Amino acid sequence: MHLTQEDALVNLRIPGPTACPPDVLDSLSGQMMNHRGPEFGAILERVTEGLRPFLATENDILILTCSGSGVMEAAVVNTLSPGDNVLAVSIGAFGDRFGQIAEAYGANVTPLDFEWGSAADPATIADAVRDTEACALLLTHNETSTGVTNPLQQICAAAREAKPDLLILVNAVSSAGCIPVEPDNWGIDVLVTGSQKGWQVPPGLAMAVVGPRAWDAYETARMPRFYLDFGKAREFVAKGQTPFTPAVTVFYGLDLALRNMASEGTEATYARHQRIAAHCRRRIEALGLDLFADPRFASNTVTAVRVPDGIDGADLSRLLRTEYDTVIAGGQAALTGKIFRIGHLGWVDQAQIDAALDALGDALAQLGYVAPAQAEDHA
Amino acid sequence: MHLTQEDALVNLRIPGPTACPPDVLDSLSGQMMNHRGPEFGAILERVTEGLRPFLATENDILILTCSGSGVMEAAVVNTLSPGDNVLAVSIGAFGDRFGQIAEAYGANVTPLDFEWGSAADPATIADAVRDTEACALLLTHNETSTGVTNPLQQICAAAREAKPDLLILVNAVSSAGCIPVEPDNWGIDVLVTGSQKGWQVPPGLAMAVVGPRAWDAYETARMPRFYLDFGKAREFVAKGQTPFTPAVTVFYGLDLALRNMASEGTEATYARHQRIAAHCRRRIEALGLDLFADPRFASNTVTAVRVPDGIDGADLSRLLRTEYDTVIAGGQAALTGKIFRIGHLGWVDQAQIDAALDALGDALAQLGYVAPAQAEDHA
Repeated sequence: MHLTQEDALVNLRIPGPTACPPDVLDSLSGQMMNHRGPEFGAILERVTEGLRPFLATENDILILTCSGSGVMEAAVVNTLSPGDNVLAVSIGAFGDRFGQIAEAYGANVTPLDFEWGSAADPATIADAVRDTEACALLLTHNETSTGVTNPLQQICAAAREAKPDLLILVNAVSSAGCIPVEPDNWGIDVLVTGSQKGWQVPPGLAMAVVGPRAWDAYETARMPRFYLDFGKAREFVAKGQTPFTPAVTVFYGLDLALRNMASEGTEATYARHQRIAAHCRRRIEALGLDLFADPRFASNTVTAVRVPDGIDGADLSRLLRTEYDTVIAGGQAALTGKIFRIGHLGWVDQAQIDAALDALGDALAQLGYVAPAQAEDHA
Repeated sequence: MHLTQEDALVNLRIPGPTACPPDVLDSLSGQMMNHRGPEFGAILERVTEGLRPFLATENDILILTCSGSGVMEAAVVNTLSPGDNVLAVSIGAFGDRFGQIAEAYGANVTPLDFEWGSAADPATIADAVRDTEACALLLTHNETSTGVTNPLQQICAAAREAKPDLLILVNAVSSAGCIPVEPDNWGIDVLVTGSQKGWQVPPGLAMAVVGPRAWDAYETARMPRFYLDFGKAREFVAKGQTPFTPAVTVFYGLDLALRNMASEGTEATYARHQRIAAHCRRRIEALGLDLFADPRFASNTVTAVRVPDGIDGADLSRLLRTEYDTVIAGGQAALTGKIFRIGHLGWVDQAQIDAALDALGDALAQLGYVAPAQAEDHA
C-alpha cells in the first residue's frame, strides 16, 4: 500500500469516518442498479466472502444499512428479551452506549465500569457474570473514546467458563479489519462492525457476525424489531438480496476495498496497524505528551493523548484544522477538553501519521506549549 | 433537464433505487470529512433547507441513515406506545408493511385494506377512525407495489375531522420530491421519504418531517428506540450533526441533487413527473396492455401493468434485462408474475420512457405477444 499526503487535501485523523483510497472513492460513482437483480446479488456474495477472512468466521455475516450504533442495537434486539439480566462492561463512551441500548429495550442492565483509559479485567468480569446471573454480556473490543483495546479473547474465555451458555455480544466497530478478531474461536455470539472504520469505505453499512447460539436466542428473543431484524436479513441473503434497499454505492466501494485488503492480506494489514500505532505513540511521547491509555492495552486503531496543561483542547483542534489541514478528534463525554485522539485505521500509512505529528508539534508550539524535556533544558 | 440514453448503459426503470445524474454520481467520490466538524454542519444545513420547499414544511426535517422501511419504523416508534389502537390503511405491499411494523412493536393494529390497484376511500377511513377509536392512522401516499397514489389530502381532512387529535403518519417514500406533499397544510404529523426514490441520489438516507403533534406524542410514546430516535436527531441537528455517523457520501450527492432540483423548481419537477407518467400510460395502452391501477389514482412515479395472457412475467423481465439493457420491476407478494412495474421518478425524462417502451414492445413481440388490436386485424 502506497499513498502520499498529496492524495488528500486534508489529513483526516479522526477514528472514523476514515479517509478512503482514490480507487474506492471512484467506485462510489457507479450508476444505480436493481438491488433485487443478479448483479447486486453477485456483489453481496463477493462482499460477504471478502469480509470472511478478516472476520475469521464460518458463521452468518449480515450487512445492514445503518451506522455502528444501529448494528449494536441489532445485536441486542435480535437476541434478548425485556427483563433479561445483562452485564454491560464499559471502559468508555461506547461501552456505556451498548448498555444504554439494552436498557432502552427493557433489559435489566448491570453496568460493570472500569476506569476510562484502562482495560476491562477478565477475572472481574467472570465474577460479575456469576454474581448477576447475566444471560448476556455486552463487550467493546476497541473503545474508540479512550484508545484502549480490551483483551477480548481472555475476557470471552473467562466469561464463558463462568457461564457456558452466556450470550456474548461484541462491539468490534473500530477494531475489525485492523486488529484480529476471531468470533468463532473466541466464542463470540454476535460481533458487529461498521464500514467507515477499518474497511476503507464511507459510512452507511454495518456488518454483524451471527453464530449458532445467537440464532438459538433469536428464536425466543422478544425485544421488538423490524428494520434491524437478523432473521429477515438471513432469509434475503439466501436469495442474494437485503430485506430493505441497501446503500448500494457503499457496497460498490466495499467490493473494491475488500479486494485491495485481500491483496494486502490479513496478517499484513494487522501488522501495518500495529506498526503505525506504535510509531504514533513513540512520536507522541517524543513531543513530551502523555498517552491516555494503559500502555499494555493501547489501541492499534486510535491513540488518545492528554491535552497538556495550559493548552485548550478546542483551540488545538481548531488550529490544526484551519492552519494545518489536519483534523483530529476531541474527547467525548467526561473527556471533552481533556484528551484528543488520533485515528490510524483503515487506509493509513506512516507518512500520514508523520505529517499529523509534525503538524501537532508545530501547532502546540504556536499555542505556547513547551515540552517537559525542553522545559527542563530551559530551566 | 436534459439527458439521453447514452448517459447510462442500462435503462433502470424500477421504482428505486433510481438512476442518478452524472454530476451527482461524481459528487459521491468526495473524500471523507469529520461528521462532527463545521464542513459537515454546513452540508446538513444546506440539505435540510434544500429539502424544505419539496417537503412544504416549516416543521423539523430529520435525516436518518437507513432505508425507507427504517424511517417508517422511526415514525411508529417515536410516536406510539405498545397497546395503542392504530388503524393501518393498506392498498398494497407497503401499506401492509407499515401495519406490520406497528404490530412488531406491540400496537393494536386494525388493518383497513382496499383492493390492490384501487385507492383508499376517505369516508371509509373516517368511519373506521371513529369505530376503532384509533389514536393513530398509518397511510401510504404512493403505493409503490401497485402504482396507485392515494388522495392524501382528502384522506387526511376526513380522518382529522373524525378525530381531531389523531396522529397521522404518512409513508411518502416514493412520492415526495415528485408528487406534491404538504404535511403542514394537510395536517400530517410525520411524513417520511427515502433518498433513492425521487431525490436523485443513491439509497442510504431517509428523511422525516416531524410536526408539533408528533413531538407531543414523542414525549409519552413508550415504544423502545435508540438508533431511530427522533429526539436525539433533533438535538444533534441543533449542533449541525447527526447523533450517529451518517452516510456522508449520500449527503454529498443530496447536497448537489437538491441544488439541481431547486434550479428546476418544485412546480416544474411535479409537472415533469405528471407529463412523463401520462406519456408512459398512453404508450402502455398503445401496446394494447392493461394498466393495473384505477386510472383516477394512477401514480406519477410508477406504472403497474398487467402481464398479458400467455406471457411469463419473469421471462419478460429477463429478456428486457439481458437483451435490451432495460430493467423493470416485477410484481410483489400476491402480484408476483401478474404485473410488472415501470418506474418514472427522480432523474427521468421522456426519452428514457420511450426507450423502455420501445424495448418492451420488441421484447413482447419476441415472446409471441400480439396486441389485441393487431390480433383483430389478423383475424
